[in-house]
Amino acid sequence: MDTQMTMTAAAFEADFAYDRPALLARRNAKWRQYDPDVIPAFVADMDFRVAPAIQAAIRASVDAEDYGYPMRDGKKADRAVLEAFAHRMKGLYGWEAQADLSMAIADLVQATFASVMAFTQPGDGVIVQVPNYPPFRAAVNDTGRSFVPMPMKPEGDGYVFDLDQLAATMPPSTRMLILCNPQNPTGRVFSRAELQAVLAFAQKHDLLVLSDEIHSDLIYAGNTHLPFAALGPAAEARTITLNSATKSFNIPGLRTAVINFGTEALKARFERHFPARVVGSVNSLGIDATVAAWQDSSDWLCGLIAHLSAMRDHVYTRITRDIPMIRMKKPEATYLTWLDCSDLGLSGTAFDFFHTHARIGFSPGENFLPGAERLVRLNFATSRVIIDEMIDRMAEAVQRNTR
Amino acid sequence: MDTQMTMTAAAFEADFAYDRPALLARRNAKWRQYDPDVIPAFVADMDFRVAPAIQAAIRASVDAEDYGYPMRDGKKADRAVLEAFAHRMKGLYGWEAQADLSMAIADLVQATFASVMAFTQPGDGVIVQVPNYPPFRAAVNDTGRSFVPMPMKPEGDGYVFDLDQLAATMPPSTRMLILCNPQNPTGRVFSRAELQAVLAFAQKHDLLVLSDEIHSDLIYAGNTHLPFAALGPAAEARTITLNSATKSFNIPGLRTAVINFGTEALKARFERHFPARVVGSVNSLGIDATVAAWQDSSDWLCGLIAHLSAMRDHVYTRITRDIPMIRMKKPEATYLTWLDCSDLGLSGTAFDFFHTHARIGFSPGENFLPGAERLVRLNFATSRVIIDEMIDRMAEAVQRNTR
Repeated sequence: MDTQMTMTAAAFEADFAYDRPALLARRNAKWRQYDPDVIPAFVADMDFRVAPAIQAAIRASVDAEDYGYPMRDGKKADRAVLEAFAHRMKGLYGWEAQADLSMAIADLVQATFASVMAFTQPGDGVIVQVPNYPPFRAAVNDTGRSFVPMPMKPEGDGYVFDLDQLAATMPPSTRMLILCNPQNPTGRVFSRAELQAVLAFAQKHDLLVLSDEIHSDLIYAGNTHLPFAALGPAAEARTITLNSATKSFNIPGLRTAVINFGTEALKARFERHFPARVVGSVNSLGIDATVAAWQDSSDWLCGLIAHLSAMRDHVYTRITRDIPMIRMKKPEATYLTWLDCSDLGLSGTAFDFFHTHARIGFSPGENFLPGAERLVRLNFATSRVIIDEMIDRMAEAVQRNTR
Repeated sequence: MDTQMTMTAAAFEADFAYDRPALLARRNAKWRQYDPDVIPAFVADMDFRVAPAIQAAIRASVDAEDYGYPMRDGKKADRAVLEAFAHRMKGLYGWEAQADLSMAIADLVQATFASVMAFTQPGDGVIVQVPNYPPFRAAVNDTGRSFVPMPMKPEGDGYVFDLDQLAATMPPSTRMLILCNPQNPTGRVFSRAELQAVLAFAQKHDLLVLSDEIHSDLIYAGNTHLPFAALGPAAEARTITLNSATKSFNIPGLRTAVINFGTEALKARFERHFPARVVGSVNSLGIDATVAAWQDSSDWLCGLIAHLSAMRDHVYTRITRDIPMIRMKKPEATYLTWLDCSDLGLSGTAFDFFHTHARIGFSPGENFLPGAERLVRLNFATSRVIIDEMIDRMAEAVQRNTR
């Protein structure tokens, strides 16, 4: 494992940020979804080269044409991901996330759907923080469960939730709480006290907690991530944890994630519905990339966070200065920010407004919360020059097209 | 798509077969499962470099660090695999395997487990040809279904099945027939007449047919593959077809396969149990590799089949000459052959005998059929020199250690 943690924001941007021509030449969804004149700022893909260790690990397998049934260190290869996950959780948080209680899985959407189906019945209530990552809503609604919203309310510099109100409004059939921490799209990193309150709530109402922690490597100074299961055995007994290197290390196409069960009993319950072999296998290049991300990419990650932190501050400074009618709170984590454009007096959706008048492709707010047509999610995982062009265009569009 | 179909066996072996030091340096399961002095001849992995078009496709993505949410030709990337599959089925067999009725899935084990769970109930009978690929047995037994054997009986130069006997012995709750065609491990390629008989049987007993056709690209001269669903609408109405480039093109670690439903109704039934998003996503490099395999690798495949055909004949010639007590029938497809060592008078299993006395790692016969301890499956997808060493060692072990 590398030990340098010294890369600056400027060095990261110089070494790893793609420029616009390079981005336009890429094949991924982010730069192909819209016309070439649109700046895409939607899907959680970053405009950066991957960590050198990831690229080296993939190249080593590709140079060897190593595409056979994979083994690593004498074991089935997916074990390497589970052990790397366990090692990382222990090192970062002191949490003993046992490899034996984990499974490799293609992605968190699959893991979420499978967990909802395995641990709840049709008709059961499933709590989801709103606004929310859209597949969480689909995992509840598409499987015939009852969507129970847990509002993240803007308050002060951030967003808060109200468990008393939730207790008063949730149906008695509620069985699961999907916790997204850090939360997408608000960027909240929940404090130990908040997580303890969620645990007490889950114990009181006998809820399982499905804790999506995919953004947990992207935490800004002043905030501390704590895996929900790391609260202790009482939490582990009711927690399924989801994580993956794909978001923080920019390898979503490689489809490699981990689902960890806090106890053997939870794993057994899951496997009664989804035997390991119906979950599918994870590909060898995704395994190699993930292990390299978690074990040998801390310098790149340090540089990434330095750059993203600077970009977060820059977006905040520019929006509050140049488009003060847009309400933004600084995210505590993630490269995503939730922009409230209600005060612009738009006649249509905020997404359409900026797509039409600024040629920017945000994520529409209504995808995260029905009725949130005046909000958008902005992805600032790009270079400063692209961010500046984006905000220039936004400001100009607002100036020209609103009263 | 390339049009040359001219590569000879010798040219293929010279260009694509790894030698033993190169194989020992690899990380895949085949060459790591046993001690280095053991010749592995078990898992369905080949000792050959992949087709140049596959390597080029992977390299193009890797050189571009193209690991984002993938799109190909303006669509979600997995659509490219489904369209390549449809195009290939149409071109090779005239079968309209619609992309809209297909899903990309990590592997055939997942697809088999999911299909058994989606289309049958616990306790239902599921017919499986025996000997069989071991995960088929697991997909039936591990999910609480009832395993209904359909024996492949040695007869003449090959193996035959008896549907009248099956009808007389199968339980009334039987709902599905898992057809493996070409059949692993016997190497049978079923004739149109045999498949028509299976269809009539399935219609009479109202069975769904889960048709695993993963070996269908590896057919030897004199045999013709026919997808079961290509028998026509009556077959399609009750057929789920599984295929993948991973076996024939030697990319199993890349975890990319296709499940095709013969009708919209079958797809809808499947999705009631397994919504698309609980099936998981397929990784972008596996997608690129599969499309390159199916669209641009016919010259390599032609050379592969020429070489494998020569090796099949060579193994047959040498075994019948040097170890005539081992009974072998020439496979009509696949690089696998099923060896009956019953006449050697072994005290233990054939696998153990050859592992101990010849240092060869076969697949144990009992993995394919309980009680078949005197049989092994041999994988001959390697170079002539390794095959000769394997058979030399087998012959010597038999001479020294049996009466």
